[in-house]
Amino acid sequence: MYLLKKMILEQGIVVNNDVLKVDSFLNHCIDPVLMQEIGKEFFQRFKNEKITKVLTVETSGIAPALFTGLEFKVPVVFAKKSGALNLDKDVFETSIHSFTKQKDYMIKVSKKYLTSDDVVLIIDDFLANGQAVIGMSELISMAGAKLAGVGIVIEKGFQDGGALLHEMGMRVESLAIIDKMSQGKIFIRNEEENKK
Amino acid sequence: MYLLKKMILEQGIVVNNDVLKVDSFLNHCIDPVLMQEIGKEFFQRFKNEKITKVLTVETSGIAPALFTGLEFKVPVVFAKKSGALNLDKDVFETSIHSFTKQKDYMIKVSKKYLTSDDVVLIIDDFLANGQAVIGMSELISMAGAKLAGVGIVIEKGFQDGGALLHEMGMRVESLAIIDKMSQGKIFIRNEEENKK
Repeated sequence: MYLLKKMILEQGIVVNNDVLKVDSFLNHCIDPVLMQEIGKEFFQRFKNEKITKVLTVETSGIAPALFTGLEFKVPVVFAKKSGALNLDKDVFETSIHSFTKQKDYMIKVSKKYLTSDDVVLIIDDFLANGQAVIGMSELISMAGAKLAGVGIVIEKGFQDGGALLHEMGMRVESLAIIDKMSQGKIFIRNEEENKK
Repeated sequence: MYLLKKMILEQGIVVNNDVLKVDSFLNHCIDPVLMQEIGKEFFQRFKNEKITKVLTVETSGIAPALFTGLEFKVPVVFAKKSGALNLDKDVFETSIHSFTKQKDYMIKVSKKYLTSDDVVLIIDDFLANGQAVIGMSELISMAGAKLAGVGIVIEKGFQDGGALLHEMGMRVESLAIIDKMSQGKIFIRNEEENKK
C-alpha cells in the first residue's frame, strides 16, 4: 500500500527504536480516506474467505476494522477492554499481557455477537508481540467460530508477533512491515518481500 | 433517517426508562452500512459549513464520526479519556461529569490536531445530559477553533442535553430523538417534529 507507506515515512514519529507514533492518521487523528483504502485492500486480500464478521479490539483497531467491514458488508465487533475479570455469563473473555504497559488486561465480547456460524477476520492497527491477536483468536475459539485470517495495518517486523502467529498457523496480511527503526529513521520492507 | 429508526425499534433494548442498549449496531457490534448512511446524512445537514475537522470522544462516537469525516474528506480527531489530570503541555483537556457513572473524567486532544484555523463538527453516538458535547466544545474554544455544529445519532429527548445545547447557541442535528421509553417500549419522535 503505497499511500500508507508514504504516510508512515512522512508523518511517523520514531519515539525510540521500538516505539512508532502515527497519531496524525491512525491513533488519535484519523484519515478516513486512508482508512477506506485500507478497507479495500483487506477486502482484496481476504475476499475469497466468506467472512461473516470482522473482529477488533478497542480503540485504535476500530477505524481500519470498520472500513474493512463496510467492504465485506458484514458487522464489525470490537472487543472491550477492562481491568478485571468479569463474572458476566454472557461474554467470552480472556486475558492479554501488554508488554508496553507491563500489565494484564481482560478483553471481552458478548456471546450474542460471536457464534459458531461465524467466519471471522481479525483486524488490528499494530502487530508487535502478537498478544492482542492471540487473545482475540481465543475468543473466536471459545465461540466455536472459524478464524479466517488476520489483517494488520502496521507490523513491527523486528518484534516476534508475526513469526509467532505464522507458527500458530494463522494467515497474516500486513499492509506495511517495518524492518527497523534507527536514529529516527523508519525502514519499511519492500512490496516484493511482503508477497513472499 | 428511516433505517436508523427501524433498527432502534427492532433491536434496541430498553434496560429501564432511562437506559437504551443498542449494542447490536452501534456500541459493541457495529453495522458499517448503517454508519455509512449516517455519515451521508450528517454531510447533507452540514455540507454548507466548510467543516475542516470532525471531533468525537472515544469509544462509541468513533464509528459515526469516521463515516462523517469520509464524506467531508476531513480528518477525524477523537478525544481520549483518562482518569486524571494530565500535565502534558501539548494537549487541551477538560473535565466531564458522567451522570451515568457518577464520576468525573478528563478528555484531551493534542494541540497538533485542533487549531484556530479549524471549523469543527462534533459527532457523538448519544446525547443525554450534554456533558460530553459541552466538554468537547470547551476543547474547541481552547484551540480558538470554530464550532460549526453538533451531529447526534440518538438523542434522549426526555433528558435535558438537547435544550441545554440549544440555549448555548449550538446547532444540534439529531438523527433520531427518543421522546419516551416506557414498559419496554421506545417512542421515537416523528420526522416532521424533528424539522421544527
